[in-house]
Amino acid sequence: GTVSSAGDDLIINTKGNLSVKTADNSKSFAIGGRLQWDYDATESKDNEKKTDDFDVRRARIYVKGHVNDWGYKAQFNVAESDGAKGGSAEDLYINYSGFGSAANIKVGKQSEPFGLESTTSSKDISALERSALTEFYAPSRAAGVQLHGKGSNWTYGVGLFESDGDGSNDVEHTALTGRVTFAALHTEQALLHVGASFSSRDAEESADEVDSYGLEFGAAFGPLHLQSEYFASEIGSQDYDGYYLQAGWIITGESRPYKNGVFSRVKPKGPLGAWELVARYEDGDGKYSDIGLESEQRYNGKQYTVGLNYYATKNTRLGLSYMDGEADNAESGGTRFAGNELRGRFQFAF
Amino acid sequence: GTVSSAGDDLIINTKGNLSVKTADNSKSFAIGGRLQWDYDATESKDNEKKTDDFDVRRARIYVKGHVNDWGYKAQFNVAESDGAKGGSAEDLYINYSGFGSAANIKVGKQSEPFGLESTTSSKDISALERSALTEFYAPSRAAGVQLHGKGSNWTYGVGLFESDGDGSNDVEHTALTGRVTFAALHTEQALLHVGASFSSRDAEESADEVDSYGLEFGAAFGPLHLQSEYFASEIGSQDYDGYYLQAGWIITGESRPYKNGVFSRVKPKGPLGAWELVARYEDGDGKYSDIGLESEQRYNGKQYTVGLNYYATKNTRLGLSYMDGEADNAESGGTRFAGNELRGRFQFAF
Amino acid sequence: GTVSSAGDDLIINTKGNLSVKTADNSKSFAIGGRLQWDYDATESKDNEKKTDDFDVRRARIYVKGHVNDWGYKAQFNVAESDGAKGGSAEDLYINYSGFGSAANIKVGKQSEPFGLESTTSSKDISALERSALTEFYAPSRAAGVQLHGKGSNWTYGVGLFESDGDGSNDVEHTALTGRVTFAALHTEQALLHVGASFSSRDAEESADEVDSYGLEFGAAFGPLHLQSEYFASEIGSQDYDGYYLQAGWIITGESRPYKNGVFSRVKPKGPLGAWELVARYEDGDGKYSDIGLESEQRYNGKQYTVGLNYYATKNTRLGLSYMDGEADNAESGGTRFAGNELRGRFQFAF
Repeated sequence: GTVSSAGDDLIINTKGNLSVKTADNSKSFAIGGRLQWDYDATESKDNEKKTDDFDVRRARIYVKGHVNDWGYKAQFNVAESDGAKGGSAEDLYINYSGFGSAANIKVGKQSEPFGLESTTSSKDISALERSALTEFYAPSRAAGVQLHGKGSNWTYGVGLFESDGDGSNDVEHTALTGRVTFAALHTEQALLHVGASFSSRDAEESADEVDSYGLEFGAAFGPLHLQSEYFASEIGSQDYDGYYLQAGWIITGESRPYKNGVFSRVKPKGPLGAWELVARYEDGDGKYSDIGLESEQRYNGKQYTVGLNYYATKNTRLGLSYMDGEADNAESGGTRFAGNELRGRFQFAF
Repeated sequence: GTVSSAGDDLIINTKGNLSVKTADNSKSFAIGGRLQWDYDATESKDNEKKTDDFDVRRARIYVKGHVNDWGYKAQFNVAESDGAKGGSAEDLYINYSGFGSAANIKVGKQSEPFGLESTTSSKDISALERSALTEFYAPSRAAGVQLHGKGSNWTYGVGLFESDGDGSNDVEHTALTGRVTFAALHTEQALLHVGASFSSRDAEESADEVDSYGLEFGAAFGPLHLQSEYFASEIGSQDYDGYYLQAGWIITGESRPYKNGVFSRVKPKGPLGAWELVARYEDGDGKYSDIGLESEQRYNGKQYTVGLNYYATKNTRLGLSYMDGEADNAESGGTRFAGNELRGRFQFAF
Repeated sequence: GTVSSAGDDLIINTKGNLSVKTADNSKSFAIGGRLQWDYDATESKDNEKKTDDFDVRRARIYVKGHVNDWGYKAQFNVAESDGAKGGSAEDLYINYSGFGSAANIKVGKQSEPFGLESTTSSKDISALERSALTEFYAPSRAAGVQLHGKGSNWTYGVGLFESDGDGSNDVEHTALTGRVTFAALHTEQALLHVGASFSSRDAEESADEVDSYGLEFGAAFGPLHLQSEYFASEIGSQDYDGYYLQAGWIITGESRPYKNGVFSRVKPKGPLGAWELVARYEDGDGKYSDIGLESEQRYNGKQYTVGLNYYATKNTRLGLSYMDGEADNAESGGTRFAGNELRGRFQFAF
């Protein structure tokens, strides 16, 4: 049978997801999501603790759309997964674009603008898990209001957020967080990206107040990419810092895509998919929880990661990574821990 | 590329949401939802308690559809929000329309048919929050079976519901709830609406048994609207009553829409949106929780509300309201409380 | 207005749900679900316990799709219902079909391949509830990896799953589960189906280790169908077994559909719908929880079920069933219980 619209001309698309927009792009609706199933095995050399698990890492569905200058996104967890309850929201915001792309306003639960690895989607990061440094210094999603914008080779975002991050309490203690990025060079074959972030987080006790800074660098040359971030934080009167350095090589020759200040997922050129090798080295104060150390405590450590990714289609990623690290517990008198993790992932993003 | 249907001719539409139906309207599917982000600050003058918060007020997605005489709606919360768990249902029913629009049967979790403000969607009420009276007298959603119908200028609904309202227990104690409405006048420029409701709610203890009545009046003349309800309740052997009176003026000249016994959301005529002023006065026994009084107790109070709404598009509403009230605690010997609330809202309904 | 695609030609369909695929079937997306509202009343003759309830039995929404050889399905609960939390996943898997239909690989949370009644969708089983035997012997959904395939008249599945079934713990204790089916005869008017299953489940304690076997038989002749399964289990060193026998007659003349090793839902031929009578007899060790016996314990019992189904459309089913049974508590010295259940259902599957 025929398919027509009762109103404006429509353009429909499916790439595993579904998107519908009017031909004049005045209105849109899309639904999609991501599924990540992980096997991971950790081994802590000092306390002889071994774990292994096969579990949902992320299972999310989103709907998003816009009408004229107003848009929204609601992304929620459909299963209990690592770090998230089922029936909870990730993104949940309303966006106003009436001042143009250089100055949007986003209201609601959203990623705070801080860091390169943190703002890159979990579908698109090169190693399966973010670095222990990003986990420690970068705030996660929070309820707030952000002014953000972009130009041909720059982006910025600055916002006021609930500093406890759980969006459930009051607004007495807020965080001011911001990030700017600049792509000095961005052609199909080459990229040179720099950025800087800050977050100043108020708290009930002055010992819990946080001031964090981040510097980021990204580059791509054909199938190679480099990515590095340096972070420093003052929590109360304690100082912390650290950095990571990451390199990737897409064996099958694709370039790692980049857009609006973040990297995105490798898109295979051929029907046989794309293969990627990635390596990362981290050094500094961080949250070394992936290798089995307590996530509630702060460590000064070192960690390296090697990974192999297979992008079967634009939607499908199979990944394998190995992390090995050692760290001193900065709070309990320097007890040394060492651990490693082997992780495998099946991912479908739609 | 082309878009066709494997079966009946289809008509597709997006207005921030997505709806698909067959050209003969024998089948349909739609997905949509609502996001409400609120800032609210309450101040209780007597106990010196102040709160402020920025939080999700409602975040819901629905799917609905029908095949021939049978339809369904499943509307669920995608985040923990004020009064609702994430992953919980609001509407969750199957509807039979085979006897015509004058007699539908709705089975499942649904709004009980009681009152004008209560049955008007939370997207569409004029003040940001319903009155303390509606909160007290009107039952919320419950599992049950309802016979409901409508004609050109009348509606009715009568149903049997689980009286505990949470849908989780047995059916020993039920509620019989009903409502009739009549639009004596309904043109593009003028409306005169009257209605009456009742709810008789069984309980384990006779002291918890409830009989409630409601009378409602609504009118619109061009950009003005008036709305009023009177409620009375007997809980055990205690009598309660109260009323509210609300007036609204759409400064930009639109009329407040009305359909099937309820008001709906103001739809801006021009590209600059619509502005609305609203005022409400309440007097009587009620649930004065918005201004910071304990929601579990019953109060005899007075409260006024003033509000300003900006409807940027059919989908987007920005609202600001101020409520000020004072109430005697009817149960604890007449302690007097006074409080106020300032509330701001970002709403996107799709 | 017109509707077109930005990429491949698309085919869209709605039958209460929504499905979109490219004309070459290289990509697809679908969204649908099921709603089941049940009234059930149980009566236990020995302990004088009576319950009755009107509640959600299942309320699920799914999205599924594929891109080339990779597909996914995410089906989640949108309300707290009998046995499931809201915001929890039922199916949540990624499927690889690149080796052809004879050998797919499914990774994630999924139904374990065991038994005929167990693998038949809860939308499509003839009696409203599965037998006490299936409830006892057949594993439910679990996280794992399955190799599965089908031919013109055969199917198989074999997989490794987390044996605790909740997907939240480690993978130390796994279950190996498999099933094969063969349709010796399958025409429009007649069906002869046989199948066999096994599941070997590791546990922390050897007393909790389980080895289960199942044999299944299904037949259809015009409007009649027969279905029977025999199960045996060794739990620790204890042996259990039992069988059920079910017969159905579609009064209005339709045949019970069968596809890929399972029965599916009766599809009415005429506009007045289809009516079906079903009867089932069970005898053996099982989980006689529907008639009010404790679901945590094991019983040796007998139970019969009679049911009447009305399929108003392909989507809508109204059902009524009565179960009566008696059982000895195998663990507490043979106390005899007897009970019955009356159940009515409104179902919309989309």
